[in-house]
Amino acid sequence: MSAPAVSLSQLTPLSFLERSATVHPTKPAVVHGDLTWTYSDLAQRVEQVARALHATGVQAGDRVAYLMPNVPDMLVAHFAVPLAGAVLVAINTRLAPEEVRYILDHSGSTVLVVDTELASTLAPVVDALETVRTVVVAADPTVASPAPAALPGAISFDELLDLADGTDPLTWRVDDENAPISINYTSGTTGRPKGVVYTHRGAYLNALGENVHSDHSVDSVYLWTLPMFHCNGWCTTWSLVAAGGTQVCLREVRGDQVWSLIDRHAVTHLNGAPTVVTTILNAPEAHLLDRPLVVTVAGAPPSPTTLAEAETMGFAIVHVYGLTETYGPYTVNERQPAWQSLPGDERAHLQSRQGVAMVQADPVRVVEPELVDGVLVDVPADGVTMGEIVMRGNTVMREYHRDGEATAKAFAGGWFHSGDLGVMHPDGYVELRDRAKDVIVSGGENISTVEVEHAIASHPGVLEVAVVGVPDERWGERPKAFVVARSGHDVGEVALLEHVRSRLARYKAPREIQVVGELPKTSTGKVQKFELREKEWSGEQSRIRG
Amino acid sequence: MSAPAVSLSQLTPLSFLERSATVHPTKPAVVHGDLTWTYSDLAQRVEQVARALHATGVQAGDRVAYLMPNVPDMLVAHFAVPLAGAVLVAINTRLAPEEVRYILDHSGSTVLVVDTELASTLAPVVDALETVRTVVVAADPTVASPAPAALPGAISFDELLDLADGTDPLTWRVDDENAPISINYTSGTTGRPKGVVYTHRGAYLNALGENVHSDHSVDSVYLWTLPMFHCNGWCTTWSLVAAGGTQVCLREVRGDQVWSLIDRHAVTHLNGAPTVVTTILNAPEAHLLDRPLVVTVAGAPPSPTTLAEAETMGFAIVHVYGLTETYGPYTVNERQPAWQSLPGDERAHLQSRQGVAMVQADPVRVVEPELVDGVLVDVPADGVTMGEIVMRGNTVMREYHRDGEATAKAFAGGWFHSGDLGVMHPDGYVELRDRAKDVIVSGGENISTVEVEHAIASHPGVLEVAVVGVPDERWGERPKAFVVARSGHDVGEVALLEHVRSRLARYKAPREIQVVGELPKTSTGKVQKFELREKEWSGEQSRIRG
Repeated sequence: MSAPAVSLSQLTPLSFLERSATVHPTKPAVVHGDLTWTYSDLAQRVEQVARALHATGVQAGDRVAYLMPNVPDMLVAHFAVPLAGAVLVAINTRLAPEEVRYILDHSGSTVLVVDTELASTLAPVVDALETVRTVVVAADPTVASPAPAALPGAISFDELLDLADGTDPLTWRVDDENAPISINYTSGTTGRPKGVVYTHRGAYLNALGENVHSDHSVDSVYLWTLPMFHCNGWCTTWSLVAAGGTQVCLREVRGDQVWSLIDRHAVTHLNGAPTVVTTILNAPEAHLLDRPLVVTVAGAPPSPTTLAEAETMGFAIVHVYGLTETYGPYTVNERQPAWQSLPGDERAHLQSRQGVAMVQADPVRVVEPELVDGVLVDVPADGVTMGEIVMRGNTVMREYHRDGEATAKAFAGGWFHSGDLGVMHPDGYVELRDRAKDVIVSGGENISTVEVEHAIASHPGVLEVAVVGVPDERWGERPKAFVVARSGHDVGEVALLEHVRSRLARYKAPREIQVVGELPKTSTGKVQKFELREKEWSGEQSRIRG
Repeated sequence: MSAPAVSLSQLTPLSFLERSATVHPTKPAVVHGDLTWTYSDLAQRVEQVARALHATGVQAGDRVAYLMPNVPDMLVAHFAVPLAGAVLVAINTRLAPEEVRYILDHSGSTVLVVDTELASTLAPVVDALETVRTVVVAADPTVASPAPAALPGAISFDELLDLADGTDPLTWRVDDENAPISINYTSGTTGRPKGVVYTHRGAYLNALGENVHSDHSVDSVYLWTLPMFHCNGWCTTWSLVAAGGTQVCLREVRGDQVWSLIDRHAVTHLNGAPTVVTTILNAPEAHLLDRPLVVTVAGAPPSPTTLAEAETMGFAIVHVYGLTETYGPYTVNERQPAWQSLPGDERAHLQSRQGVAMVQADPVRVVEPELVDGVLVDVPADGVTMGEIVMRGNTVMREYHRDGEATAKAFAGGWFHSGDLGVMHPDGYVELRDRAKDVIVSGGENISTVEVEHAIASHPGVLEVAVVGVPDERWGERPKAFVVARSGHDVGEVALLEHVRSRLARYKAPREIQVVGELPKTSTGKVQKFELREKEWSGEQSRIRG
């Protein structure tokens, strides 16, 4: 049964900026250093960039890539690219040039906007790009501008803006809420990152969900300690604009800068992985706050110590869990009043669980590994029986871009398979225990073990390699490599690390490379990673920290 | 472009109760007198009623009518009826028997649930009902039960519950978010009320919008001073369950009871027409509150005096505007920080404007009366030029039930025509000034002048009659009738009033009936109501108060 057009508006986060530019025209929308843009400024910039993208030839459905830290124009991109009818590909700024090239080619991006400081990342691969027609180098006025990297044919951001044709008509409405708004690349079990497709509808609903659970309002001042390239900043790019709050930009998460901005702008909200919270807590500038600061944490359960320290400091911790495939957070550890009267340890454990589905999400399930008659079967909600965490609904990705096979596999049985293993507690809260997929989560970012193995194996001295995630105090998890040397070769850890770093983002490099005589294998010759992991995780309560 | 089922969940407020029953099973969901239902209790009751409705023969798409004050089972109906796949028809409890009969027949309701105290309303018409197969009389344990009205064939609510088959499978998900969830009857320009069809999608989105603008949260305690039958309580029936808050029921808005409940349950939120706020403020029990009480007001702009008094008492007033056709509130007078420094009068005027579209709504427009090339044209945003207020999008009704002609007329040019005349201010805020449609809004409820005229004209002594809305201190507006007596008949005001009250709800009866020699008419003989209204409204700033 369809509704008449007058009763049906396609959901899109673009409507949030349309509204806030009307209702809060003079209110600060974005702050960066000494720069402040009101909502009116932001909307005008967004319109100008959208028109400029059209002028470069961008058409409906085209992909436009941004390689940028958390600066105002990165926020602008989250509205300008969809306003131009295109799809935003926000690329992880820590990737190696070859990784960036792969994403640009795989996404088929036609335009790439790159921050001056990151342009050098692109230099080695820019000539090889298959689909990019326009490269734009954006200077950040808050940093001493280095000489622009010599990118052949690149134009400056000002030159891009000059292309905008003021008569080019734009609309804040979309024809189809299920059309893509962005593609976010994430490493999975295979060697190459996969492009996770978000829709306008999913982004709209997840943004409203974030507002509910992290309590964003018109009075919110949000500090960008989470990368905007990570799940579009868990859709907070959009949710803060829906709320009419202020977003404070930040190129780099350093304790001193974070505290300086918290104090200067009376920050009320920030998001991040537990490592970010630890960095903030341990900064020499850390001090007691006289107002609540809502800190939404995901990527790993915050440790009881971190939770206690954060709360002493005046942080209100909101613990959420999700994946790139679920627009960032999908579950939230919603606090129960009864927990307050429990002993600290017990309370901390309850709060470290991944929790319940957010208000916009379908119920989360924990299911048995095998389908029964094509149907997923829940494990008992006993807090003991392990199963895989699965999700579905409006805030599950539409698909992996150009990878129908991986999409079909991820959606087996009609639910998205997280690859995370956990238990369902009798109170309906899920808790992560292990990972079914061979993925390491380090500081909130996925690392594919296969990807790291391939990089190591490409060294001539390596005969065999196996990479597993090991617990890491700071990053949750980090890769560790077990290497068997090729006969007659002497492979040193330092040389191998250097080799890997030339191919992969630095955060993906193993913390340790251990040369071994042989790898544990099954009778059929398959490496038993399980055995390697067990040794490394002995003494840990679960087999997952990332 | 469609999304796979795993990435697309149909929006429905049912999901809110599914979630809150999981996350807050032991938290109070509904309070009524000494009765408290937790979210677990509420969900169980909802399931039982849905199954019982099935047992009476209710099938997908059937209409189920409720004639009830604000009691827990009225809230249950907002979930149980859609959970049974049916459509809720919540009927205004102040209507006359003949009006209730019309709605039951027009909606084609097959089941009617009626409160014991209201059953007598039904007695005169119950035999004539065309489609109702099952009548259920519900006793309220908090009131001394009168002898149940003799309704032939009626069963008690307990007997209904007993019908529920525990094995009847239910799902909290729906197949189509654009399917109807409820039909709310409202008087328009024609003599008979029209059935406004709400969808699951619209109700879901409006509920989330209410949560944003009235700041509902898990800590909210909401008092039911707004009738649940009125636009499904502005969708607050659903929004509070989404938030996981507590709803406090109330059969009747009496100042003493309201204050007793505010104090007893530490109420944080209530909604109502300005008359409700006035009643609460003027109660002898009124006292200063030591916490903010959010009072969301619609139906008429609160007067500067009311605003000032309410704020002194600790009320945080949220002024909203909408119609039954827009799921209740569509715009909100979002406060601007800059207003705080203005003189009281100026600030009060700014706050009395109807405001800007809510976050889930499309932008509101003020348009010229005539379409240009089939397109609506905005009046200048000068705060002076009058036009009609029009709306569109997900929180505009799907249609008038069984009235394609009225629907087409209301949706002319692709927007819903409110029938309200107003101006657009340069800051994007709309302000009501007059009404294009011949409708009176009294205490938040629509009264059709035609309906009142028909009732008066049915008296044998009446030759001609014209009814207009006149300003009323308490109710905003009330009807006033001008009557020309039939020659040789002596029509007295008292006798005419009695005649009208036997046919219409009491609140629709004119405040005054003035017998005149003749009515002002055009050369073609059409009554010039405008002239009658002008006299009555002389001295008023606008021509609208309701």
